[in-house]
Amino acid sequence: MSFVRPSGRTADQMRTVSITRGFTRHAEGSVLVAFGDTRVLCTASVDNKVPGFMRGKGEGWVTAEYGMLPRATHTRNDREASRGKQGGRTLEIQRLIGRSLRACVDRAALGERTITLDCDVLQADGGTRTAAITGAYVALVDAVRWMQKRKDITKNPIIGAVAAVSVGVYRGTPVLDLDYAEDSDCDTDMNVVMNDGGGFIELQGTAEGHAFRRDELDALLLLAGHGCNELFAAQQAALAQA
Amino acid sequence: MSFVRPSGRTADQMRTVSITRGFTRHAEGSVLVAFGDTRVLCTASVDNKVPGFMRGKGEGWVTAEYGMLPRATHTRNDREASRGKQGGRTLEIQRLIGRSLRACVDRAALGERTITLDCDVLQADGGTRTAAITGAYVALVDAVRWMQKRKDITKNPIIGAVAAVSVGVYRGTPVLDLDYAEDSDCDTDMNVVMNDGGGFIELQGTAEGHAFRRDELDALLLLAGHGCNELFAAQQAALAQA
Amino acid sequence: MSFVRPSGRTADQMRTVSITRGFTRHAEGSVLVAFGDTRVLCTASVDNKVPGFMRGKGEGWVTAEYGMLPRATHTRNDREASRGKQGGRTLEIQRLIGRSLRACVDRAALGERTITLDCDVLQADGGTRTAAITGAYVALVDAVRWMQKRKDITKNPIIGAVAAVSVGVYRGTPVLDLDYAEDSDCDTDMNVVMNDGGGFIELQGTAEGHAFRRDELDALLLLAGHGCNELFAAQQAALAQA
Amino acid sequence: MSFVRPSGRTADQMRTVSITRGFTRHAEGSVLVAFGDTRVLCTASVDNKVPGFMRGKGEGWVTAEYGMLPRATHTRNDREASRGKQGGRTLEIQRLIGRSLRACVDRAALGERTITLDCDVLQADGGTRTAAITGAYVALVDAVRWMQKRKDITKNPIIGAVAAVSVGVYRGTPVLDLDYAEDSDCDTDMNVVMNDGGGFIELQGTAEGHAFRRDELDALLLLAGHGCNELFAAQQAALAQA
Amino acid sequence: MSFVRPSGRTADQMRTVSITRGFTRHAEGSVLVAFGDTRVLCTASVDNKVPGFMRGKGEGWVTAEYGMLPRATHTRNDREASRGKQGGRTLEIQRLIGRSLRACVDRAALGERTITLDCDVLQADGGTRTAAITGAYVALVDAVRWMQKRKDITKNPIIGAVAAVSVGVYRGTPVLDLDYAEDSDCDTDMNVVMNDGGGFIELQGTAEGHAFRRDELDALLLLAGHGCNELFAAQQAALAQA
Amino acid sequence: MSFVRPSGRTADQMRTVSITRGFTRHAEGSVLVAFGDTRVLCTASVDNKVPGFMRGKGEGWVTAEYGMLPRATHTRNDREASRGKQGGRTLEIQRLIGRSLRACVDRAALGERTITLDCDVLQADGGTRTAAITGAYVALVDAVRWMQKRKDITKNPIIGAVAAVSVGVYRGTPVLDLDYAEDSDCDTDMNVVMNDGGGFIELQGTAEGHAFRRDELDALLLLAGHGCNELFAAQQAALAQA
Repeated sequence: MSFVRPSGRTADQMRTVSITRGFTRHAEGSVLVAFGDTRVLCTASVDNKVPGFMRGKGEGWVTAEYGMLPRATHTRNDREASRGKQGGRTLEIQRLIGRSLRACVDRAALGERTITLDCDVLQADGGTRTAAITGAYVALVDAVRWMQKRKDITKNPIIGAVAAVSVGVYRGTPVLDLDYAEDSDCDTDMNVVMNDGGGFIELQGTAEGHAFRRDELDALLLLAGHGCNELFAAQQAALAQA
Repeated sequence: MSFVRPSGRTADQMRTVSITRGFTRHAEGSVLVAFGDTRVLCTASVDNKVPGFMRGKGEGWVTAEYGMLPRATHTRNDREASRGKQGGRTLEIQRLIGRSLRACVDRAALGERTITLDCDVLQADGGTRTAAITGAYVALVDAVRWMQKRKDITKNPIIGAVAAVSVGVYRGTPVLDLDYAEDSDCDTDMNVVMNDGGGFIELQGTAEGHAFRRDELDALLLLAGHGCNELFAAQQAALAQA
Repeated sequence: MSFVRPSGRTADQMRTVSITRGFTRHAEGSVLVAFGDTRVLCTASVDNKVPGFMRGKGEGWVTAEYGMLPRATHTRNDREASRGKQGGRTLEIQRLIGRSLRACVDRAALGERTITLDCDVLQADGGTRTAAITGAYVALVDAVRWMQKRKDITKNPIIGAVAAVSVGVYRGTPVLDLDYAEDSDCDTDMNVVMNDGGGFIELQGTAEGHAFRRDELDALLLLAGHGCNELFAAQQAALAQA
Repeated sequence: MSFVRPSGRTADQMRTVSITRGFTRHAEGSVLVAFGDTRVLCTASVDNKVPGFMRGKGEGWVTAEYGMLPRATHTRNDREASRGKQGGRTLEIQRLIGRSLRACVDRAALGERTITLDCDVLQADGGTRTAAITGAYVALVDAVRWMQKRKDITKNPIIGAVAAVSVGVYRGTPVLDLDYAEDSDCDTDMNVVMNDGGGFIELQGTAEGHAFRRDELDALLLLAGHGCNELFAAQQAALAQA
Repeated sequence: MSFVRPSGRTADQMRTVSITRGFTRHAEGSVLVAFGDTRVLCTASVDNKVPGFMRGKGEGWVTAEYGMLPRATHTRNDREASRGKQGGRTLEIQRLIGRSLRACVDRAALGERTITLDCDVLQADGGTRTAAITGAYVALVDAVRWMQKRKDITKNPIIGAVAAVSVGVYRGTPVLDLDYAEDSDCDTDMNVVMNDGGGFIELQGTAEGHAFRRDELDALLLLAGHGCNELFAAQQAALAQA
Repeated sequence: MSFVRPSGRTADQMRTVSITRGFTRHAEGSVLVAFGDTRVLCTASVDNKVPGFMRGKGEGWVTAEYGMLPRATHTRNDREASRGKQGGRTLEIQRLIGRSLRACVDRAALGERTITLDCDVLQADGGTRTAAITGAYVALVDAVRWMQKRKDITKNPIIGAVAAVSVGVYRGTPVLDLDYAEDSDCDTDMNVVMNDGGGFIELQGTAEGHAFRRDELDALLLLAGHGCNELFAAQQAALAQA
């Protein structure tokens, strides 16, 4: 068969995933996650208060911010701090990360605390948002363990695991975990966030140009399920280390 | 059966949809679209140039902006112009509208022109983004007809129709076209953008809280297909009038 | 006589004025006002607190915000929310609307509440600020009636009526209620805000180019008085409906 | 008679006016104008190009910017540069100054040049905008003389003189040239910009609280005419010096 | 000898320094300082509260803001308030002024008060930041005397004097107090802030282009010491006047 | 003797310095520099154009931007992109880095190109700006080698090396290369940028609180010279690797 992915991977093959805990020292959770050449630093910061709209409810909050270093990409992008605002893509991604991680947290068990997940892309090669969600989950668990160790909380607020992967139709074939070469040359692109019970937390599929049919969607969701299972295993392996 | 939607609708029943062309006079296309109490004014403006990144390619561009009047909602929201920036939700929605409408345009046939779709919510009751996409399609067609009448373009750049509807799991039951009462009290919410060939252009499903299973997803997509078919009929009926 | 206004109106003839109450559902007052082709949606929102500089005085506050939909005009204007700031013209108009409406309110009778008048231009054909003031008055009265019905206030804080009209010297002749064609081709333009006791609340006359003489001013003020009287009648007629 | 102005002035008496040319060295025109304790530095800067919307018309442009030093006033105001935007009052005033000065310039004779009038308030005691207009006129003439001396222009673009003064109803009596004590305690306040032919260029009257009657308006306009005549004399005296 | 400074001064000669107290009326301290043609208005404003990060410590705060009128310079600079942000140079200078003045204040003796030093350049000819520091010291002392007179404070919080001067290597020769002609054509430029005990408070030396050697540094510091001594004398003379 | 640095280092001992080239893939130069626990990613990006103010001179430009990840520090700092502006400290540091690196570049040899040095702090423990300058030099050299390899330039534009180190008086003793514990508890802090010819490029000494004497300054400069020599050796060792 003549179908070849630019990376030589098979259609259902993820890039090499690595998850390094304790990448920096100050954060309560600090994880460097790599999906192939995509590398994202995810830190979890615990703050003993909640935003105004959450005050007095006895519940916590989990939020995320996303950034990309100016030269994480092939050509340099303007620094958002210098331009004076975060772009639409950035806001969209950080809202997605926040919603995804909130889906695995029992906010009552967290108490009136905020955990902020900062996901900063050091190097980009496609799939930065899915890597960010996958890594941020591990940083979140580390921050929770830190609180447990200090006996700040008594009940574990983590309910299940969350991971994310992209899938897409590349030159007519559904493939798993798009890299930049595929992402910039594909008809349909979908980011899938799942929990380890097999449920969907977020589905974001886009077909700028050619619409996707129902059978393509089914194939993509199947691939995404396989990918997330690999990611749950990688998360657990990383968290099992001392 | 005890399941009752707040509006009394059946699970697969859309709200009353109305599409009024020529709602204001100056724009090349001007449509007031209503999905029940949700009312959005969609205008299409033609400009004989393209943004910098498109220049010299001989192709056109379609983009969208979204806004909500401060008192379109139950309680007043700050005016974004006064706060000095558009929020993440606004940017996310207007990017979605732009991508959706570009999916039905042959940009080469459009030539080096930009069509801007302004979608301003006069009254909100859930589903503003799906109403906006559905109405913006009609405004876009009117703007194209205006160009054809002036003989600015020779080939019709519109390829198929685009419409959008929301679906969600409300108190355990998949329902079509969520209104505000359902939207603010539902586990899963999905916005589905389709073309009239039955293809998916955008899928945005969110489960903040409880993840959705594959069988729920299937039921939701079925409902969305029904809903979009009704919307395509409403668009055609509106466009058939003088 | 050879003098002809572009619209065919006589010099002292206003455009058709219409005032529609309850145009949208959520606001405490919601009025669509039309001066010919100029259409402005005016909503009044009641908030049970006052800005910092008014706190603790036992008095209320009335303020206004003004906006124009991007395609309310012949050619599309940039969206202020997207540009990141309100322009000088916008700020000037909303300050004028706020001052004008405060002139008919007994702030002690209002109590520590803020009423915000949002005036959003759906379609522009000259005189948007005068239509906004005239319509905002009706929305304000509706919001006051809403508070009275709920027994939030015991004394009616409305003291008299307020309306506004533009006058100008068009091709040498003083005329009433300028439309866009006249406004963009006239030497002197004056916006006059009056109360129903015949007093002046605001006078803003501008002669960019040719200065106006005292006799012209006298003629303009006479026309404005006539116009405002018509507007007071239209306001009362609208408010007399159920 | 018991009527006493806080300053002891008679009702039709202006404060001492002084106009100092060449107050700073770099600007093409640089004038310190004082209306009593109100002191404004007005500079005129010549630039050999025009803004985009004026390009290619063979005409010049005159514009103004207004600022107030943070401690020009009794209590310190935030610095607008630090807050990140100019307030509505500032924008309104600088638009007024710009329009007023454009009224005395033949833009064709100016050629494709921009003259920017910067009016910075060093000390405020009421009437800063009227002092600014009066002083800016002198700075503008000096800038024109500088261009004439360099033979940049052949025809004098200045057509007549422009000056401005405030008038108001203070405790029931119409008075000329309000100082801060009067301004902050008066029913009606009007800024009047005139040319030396007796024509009105701008009228901005405000009655926040009590409306003014036609006879009060007549009295105010009479006072303003007297005041402007004094100011034209002061301008000519200043300009007659070497 | 052939070395000649553009101004004709000797290498160790400062420009004429003048310090005028009470230049404006409202501020608690108001000083116009001139170093030759460089003229800076320095005002000190007392506020009976401190910023958030200082609250509850029983200590005061001293801070500074710096601005330059648009036409203080040879060619007009954009107004920072209009551009919507303060530039890097402005922020850098106002941070320097603030740190320098805090070095001569016993913050406990000041109590929970803030003194804001506004330094606005009316005319620039090099050395605006050093003139600003030197003048701001005198304004600060005047504000302290005002508080002492009102018996707001019992202990004098001023500990020693602070002054600043620039030095640089101009065409190979170390010179004192650079004016604009020297500043824009010199290899090394250093701003030196000292106290009247001979100690260094700030040293900011820059060699964009050619680095400076240790012996040049020694010569520059010697010149700076001489210059600051002259400035301390000028400050004392000004403060000795009624 | 009882003097002990928090880290146990001797007064003239630097932290362990490491310089890793090729840390990320896309940039023309990419260096991770560590001064102990301070870690900064420095990338150099080549762009074949220059900013407006440099156009047409046949010379290149070197500029820098600085950022700190929100959780690089002990407690989380707000993200500057989210706040909508870079703080004064950030602007000051990036201006310093830019000036420092320009001091070792022959801009004519560079041609009309811009090299942007992005210095992003991944982990902070004092001395981030000195580490940034030291690392950015290596990234700059790598970018130049990349251009030489492509034969974009014929003459090497690098003239000498640049490195930077901080020195300070900690509890009365002059020490080299302050870490965070020392930095936050020291009287005098000086950042010294030198070239490998022993010349000073930048000196920035600050004594908020207690001024430093001339003999202390001499001791600090001596330490800085030692430190920079170590850094030049580390830079050369890193650059000698393949």
